Amino acid sequence: MSTLFKHLRVHQIFGANTDVGKTVLTSALVRASASRNNKVFYLKPVSTGPPQDADDRHITRYAGSHKHLLHTDCLFRYEEPVSPHLAAQLALERNGVKGAIPSDRTLVDSIANYIRRCSSSSPQAAHLFVETAGGVHSPTLSGTSQLDCYRPLLLPTILIGDAKLGGISSTISSYESLLLRGYSIDAVLLFRDVYYRNWEYLKPYFEERGIHLAAIDYPPPRIADLEEDLVSTEQYYQTLVPQNGRSDIYEVIDCLDACHTRRIQELDSLPRRTLDTVWWPFVQHGLVKSEKDVTVIDSAASDFFSIYSSHETTQGSLLTPQFDGSASWWTQALGHAHPELTLAAAGAAGRYGHVMFPQATHLPALKLAERLVHDGPGKGWATRAFFSDDGSTAMEVALKMALRAYTIRYGKRLDAQAKKNLGIIGLKGSYHGDTIGSMDACEEGVYTCEWHNAKGYWFEPPTISIQQGKIIVSLPPALMATMGSTTSDIDVGSLSWAYDVPIRLDTPLAEVYREYIARTLQNLKVNGGLELAAVVLEPLVMGAGGMIFVDPLFQRILVDVVRGSSGSSNSWTGLPIIFDEVFVGLYRIGMESTGPLLGVYPDISVNAKILTGGLVPMAITLASDSIFKAFMSNNKTDALLHGHSYTAHPIGCAVANKTLDIIEKLVETQHWTDAQEKWVKTSCGGRNNVWSFWDPDFVNTLSRMPKVDELMTLGTVLAIKFKDEQGGYGSHSAQTLLQSIKGSVLDEQSVSPAPGGAPFGINYRTLGNVAYFMTSLNTPSATIRSVEDRIWNALDKSLAS
Amino acid sequence: MSTLFKHLRVHQIFGANTDVGKTVLTSALVRASASRNNKVFYLKPVSTGPPQDADDRHITRYAGSHKHLLHTDCLFRYEEPVSPHLAAQLALERNGVKGAIPSDRTLVDSIANYIRRCSSSSPQAAHLFVETAGGVHSPTLSGTSQLDCYRPLLLPTILIGDAKLGGISSTISSYESLLLRGYSIDAVLLFRDVYYRNWEYLKPYFEERGIHLAAIDYPPPRIADLEEDLVSTEQYYQTLVPQNGRSDIYEVIDCLDACHTRRIQELDSLPRRTLDTVWWPFVQHGLVKSEKDVTVIDSAASDFFSIYSSHETTQGSLLTPQFDGSASWWTQALGHAHPELTLAAAGAAGRYGHVMFPQATHLPALKLAERLVHDGPGKGWATRAFFSDDGSTAMEVALKMALRAYTIRYGKRLDAQAKKNLGIIGLKGSYHGDTIGSMDACEEGVYTCEWHNAKGYWFEPPTISIQQGKIIVSLPPALMATMGSTTSDIDVGSLSWAYDVPIRLDTPLAEVYREYIARTLQNLKVNGGLELAAVVLEPLVMGAGGMIFVDPLFQRILVDVVRGSSGSSNSWTGLPIIFDEVFVGLYRIGMESTGPLLGVYPDISVNAKILTGGLVPMAITLASDSIFKAFMSNNKTDALLHGHSYTAHPIGCAVANKTLDIIEKLVETQHWTDAQEKWVKTSCGGRNNVWSFWDPDFVNTLSRMPKVDELMTLGTVLAIKFKDEQGGYGSHSAQTLLQSIKGSVLDEQSVSPAPGGAPFGINYRTLGNVAYFMTSLNTPSATIRSVEDRIWNALDKSLAS
Repeated sequence: MSTLFKHLRVHQIFGANTDVGKTVLTSALVRASASRNNKVFYLKPVSTGPPQDADDRHITRYAGSHKHLLHTDCLFRYEEPVSPHLAAQLALERNGVKGAIPSDRTLVDSIANYIRRCSSSSPQAAHLFVETAGGVHSPTLSGTSQLDCYRPLLLPTILIGDAKLGGISSTISSYESLLLRGYSIDAVLLFRDVYYRNWEYLKPYFEERGIHLAAIDYPPPRIADLEEDLVSTEQYYQTLVPQNGRSDIYEVIDCLDACHTRRIQELDSLPRRTLDTVWWPFVQHGLVKSEKDVTVIDSAASDFFSIYSSHETTQGSLLTPQFDGSASWWTQALGHAHPELTLAAAGAAGRYGHVMFPQATHLPALKLAERLVHDGPGKGWATRAFFSDDGSTAMEVALKMALRAYTIRYGKRLDAQAKKNLGIIGLKGSYHGDTIGSMDACEEGVYTCEWHNAKGYWFEPPTISIQQGKIIVSLPPALMATMGSTTSDIDVGSLSWAYDVPIRLDTPLAEVYREYIARTLQNLKVNGGLELAAVVLEPLVMGAGGMIFVDPLFQRILVDVVRGSSGSSNSWTGLPIIFDEVFVGLYRIGMESTGPLLGVYPDISVNAKILTGGLVPMAITLASDSIFKAFMSNNKTDALLHGHSYTAHPIGCAVANKTLDIIEKLVETQHWTDAQEKWVKTSCGGRNNVWSFWDPDFVNTLSRMPKVDELMTLGTVLAIKFKDEQGGYGSHSAQTLLQSIKGSVLDEQSVSPAPGGAPFGINYRTLGNVAYFMTSLNTPSATIRSVEDRIWNALDKSLAS
Repeated sequence: MSTLFKHLRVHQIFGANTDVGKTVLTSALVRASASRNNKVFYLKPVSTGPPQDADDRHITRYAGSHKHLLHTDCLFRYEEPVSPHLAAQLALERNGVKGAIPSDRTLVDSIANYIRRCSSSSPQAAHLFVETAGGVHSPTLSGTSQLDCYRPLLLPTILIGDAKLGGISSTISSYESLLLRGYSIDAVLLFRDVYYRNWEYLKPYFEERGIHLAAIDYPPPRIADLEEDLVSTEQYYQTLVPQNGRSDIYEVIDCLDACHTRRIQELDSLPRRTLDTVWWPFVQHGLVKSEKDVTVIDSAASDFFSIYSSHETTQGSLLTPQFDGSASWWTQALGHAHPELTLAAAGAAGRYGHVMFPQATHLPALKLAERLVHDGPGKGWATRAFFSDDGSTAMEVALKMALRAYTIRYGKRLDAQAKKNLGIIGLKGSYHGDTIGSMDACEEGVYTCEWHNAKGYWFEPPTISIQQGKIIVSLPPALMATMGSTTSDIDVGSLSWAYDVPIRLDTPLAEVYREYIARTLQNLKVNGGLELAAVVLEPLVMGAGGMIFVDPLFQRILVDVVRGSSGSSNSWTGLPIIFDEVFVGLYRIGMESTGPLLGVYPDISVNAKILTGGLVPMAITLASDSIFKAFMSNNKTDALLHGHSYTAHPIGCAVANKTLDIIEKLVETQHWTDAQEKWVKTSCGGRNNVWSFWDPDFVNTLSRMPKVDELMTLGTVLAIKFKDEQGGYGSHSAQTLLQSIKGSVLDEQSVSPAPGGAPFGINYRTLGNVAYFMTSLNTPSATIRSVEDRIWNALDKSLAS
């Protein structure tokens, strides 16, 4: 839900079909509520057909003796008695008005505004009934299905069932379409048709699912004489809503109120219960002081969570929209609760459930493997896809592949103990996941545990950042020494130059990198330290290690040096190279994979996170043919003995395929060109697909703020590093500076991009003194601009104080 | 699908509502197909209403000049023009016949039989149209929704859309209900209503989804004069299906044929393409010789896969049902594609997508945590639930918890190197997953890799098995020596005794175990080997290590000895104890968790597999309060720094909650008592929830077969160990003996439990010389009896030869 008030109980009425009695049954509910001395609001967002037949008139006419408690409204009226999308088109054609069809956004905001007005105009107990048109999926004015158009509001729902022949089917199908979009159904009402007796079938059906069903008598047949019809109809409503306050309709009102109360009580209880039972990942429970420190997520839609707080906000609602500023741990690509992804998941669940994968195949898994290997990040080098459950397990698989490939080629002289101690070459600040194998491929630092036994050598890499509007390559001390330089910072002019690896290969800096890397590796060999067996890199950005943007030239030259000059064969040379693209892959930083930019491809790579569009866990390890062949033999035990129960689960594969389909379309239609174009035009960059969803002017100005040490952006990512003596994972400086940003504030000048135009907060994350923000691949520009305004204002205030 | 023939193209016609023109449009399809010289079959499984109005008569009347190619049939007829379930009830009441309403099974088998008859009677190209009644969810005779009743057949579908007001909604909702059950929709047809113009909206809608839509003119209005009506209607069909062979209806026929061809080509291509691109877990690709070694899974329903083979089987179908005899890697509890689990997944996807979990909460996650901690496997000891992605990651979490708890209490003197080498106490044959940390908690054996560095001491445990009908505890050499015994086998009389841990605690054998364990641990200490920091057990059964049923008394005493006598405090004593219940938990072996049987509870436990009902990956690590507190401080970096992107993903949580709901109901209603009762009555056992889904007589007889070394069963599991000199993971003996069982065979006497009564195969698994079979928790007894027959026959033949 996007709004929830203590005293105003809002329900949306959906019909299982057209002409099933929505208005009649809503009239009865309105009358019953009013007769209990509630204030009652009735909203028909869109009405089609002649005004004299309009639903709100009927509602008013039969509201009973407490009519004065009723307020009705209709937002958009059309005369033609057809589907709203056609009525709107006809009106447009007749009136010759262009562009006058209200958008989904307008419709949703109008309803939300009406709800807020109801709430503020009525401090006492009240009901609001919002009656939709036609069936659940009937198109709204724009042509979007009502279910999808109204979804950002996610109002609690009453479903009016279909009492006629075929009505069991349409009622259940409508219920399933509601469920697919996450709606809560509080009650089902339908007429008591004594011939078809649908209610007899549907009552136990819905009660099994915890939903109250009421069967209500039909209204009397229409009488030609208007006066007589009025009397007969009024009598009907008197029977449904008797003076004694007891009837099936009153029971429905009780049920709606009980659902409303339970909803608030439940949300209210979540923080305490969670603090008592859940053990969160990465959270120091000793620092979670009170229930207020728990983010209660009621639901989510596109870029926004709907967050509950037990005290009403400025606008009176218990719920606040919060921009998902970390793309849900960097997994979201297309926003929350995307209906196409839901349907893809449902379709695979309905066709397969799960299937055990060894030596078996199914279409969703094969399709995904093929597109990743042949057309995706594996294009040009990979031949095999290995499935597992998350980035960490996929990295364990990658490491097992690389270590085996190494020992097959070089390892005849290695005993078991030596194999256990094979090391990897990586970078300081790397992170590959939290299972021990993936941890062992990283330095021991903050992310550690008893069994963590880091095996390898980690270079401190040069990085790229924006400082005071300039594009800076920062050198670590060792490289400064190699250069004989006294300053760490090199102004490289533009992002476009910084990421143009082929051109930079011929610069003096490249020579410095080459010499430094070669010398370091040579020294390691001479000193007889670890035997190094693989290179493991997060290309371009080290995410969890602190959003470190590594100079791509350094990574390219590292690969070149390790591979030596004989890199033209089909097989790997030097050492196997692993690219961990869990974070950077699939357009998170604006490119599908990093190989084309770096000009080198790995022997093994890993994708996860965006892969399944932020829905279910799944990961893929891609490998070249020579890596695959290292496990081939006639001996069962030489196989890659790694697997998880749900390997290549059809739901994950189907969702991944759908996610990649949608992303491909976004890329083809150049959905994000307006941001891109601005980057191209600025001095910062723009070529080589190096650009950002964030406005270059905003980024530039931000980089000049006094408390900002440096910042960097690529694709959907914006990382801001604040000046802080302490720094590191334990630092709280970013959190302190941005404290106010989680709360909901709305600039008076700006329009909120959140559902219903409500003031919104931002759910962002920090890594020590780094705060980072992230968008989805389809976040509208207007939303990003609003988020930029919020960040700016928060920092501006925070720095001034 | 459960049937697929090369020449017979079968389509099921579903309606978006009643009275949308299913019969008229099917007539047109029948006529067009026949006029192309196809043989055409038309089946109305259930017909209601007077015979003179019956759909099959209309079809025949207007089949056109090629009428001789048409064959129509109707399986069940009722006169009342109401929903089939009511018509069947009315007929029953009127005729006074009891129990005469055909079951879903009867209906499905009758349709399948009809399809097979059509195929064998028509070697040339043919179409079969199966017309359903009413809307997609209209009840069949038994009251089950048609969609669910016919689901085991999963016939390719034509959806007849609704052309009237509200029809956009009912058409899309019906489509979504079809998708939720995995149906493929080949075409949508609807009338071209020029006022409501639904087709204009629906055509692009379905084309975007890759589905052909045809809008067809309405039939002429009915004429009172029968003769005239006939002429006018015949003229209508002549226009729809003209002599020149070109029209929208012919295009639909082309589309249906193209879909059919593509379907077969696609399935046909899967093995080769999979062999070229996929890297399977645990599979030695060097031993996969040909495409025939790849199991192609078209779909699945309840206990059966639908398997494609490029050559037609004995019954002519390209598809064979195969019993999922390993419960899809031990994950299935409720069968494949369970509609309630699909809807639970869809509901959570539609409401949340995913949400980042640290310091946040949502209802599905909290509910699951609470029920596992308070009412589930954590009851009586756990206070916290930690989410991760699979059994392996959950075990890494468990190990991190235990090692930290140990070092906090005992570790002040431990340096970093000593912490890396802390060891665990386990059993030989253990398996906890394939990430390096979980591997390091197991001996180095077959499941190994370069970085595997096993840290701990592993006891060889005594085991329980059934040999020659006797219940035997087998002692390993070390225990034989302790006892001074020359034989390894002790006949303990019954399973009931073997698993009655409290009674056995006072036996001499218990004393032997106690002394042996204490002495061994003392020796390890004296010899200054590894410092042992935790006990890690798979209680009762070690699954992946070879389906080893460990003597529970030994595990109980191991825990007792480690904990010492001071076990009464709230905190752990001795060492933290981890129970890995990934395989045995949640009723896989007939009990929710193993603590009550063993009489001791762990400090940390792990659940996965059944947890999410065989749908999506997710795992839970439960912990006691004192373990949780070991990570509490004011220092961020003391937290349990472990997490995965999709931690506590709402879909997994919602599916887990639904799975546990359904299992609870099964347990409450004692769904499986008939098997249980037989076990109680036999001498084998039955008390203490120690019983099996497998028939005790079958088990007993099997154990006496000459090639069977021993076998064992608990709950859903049946494990058979064959005599084999070689043994071990590399052995092929079980596979060789049971070779024939994968193929489809049907005893002439017995009725197949597979969808449509087709001959079925069994998809079973082996671990070296052990073959194991598994059921779901809701597999019908009749199905298990049939599987037993198949196993018996296969072994009987194999051993005779």
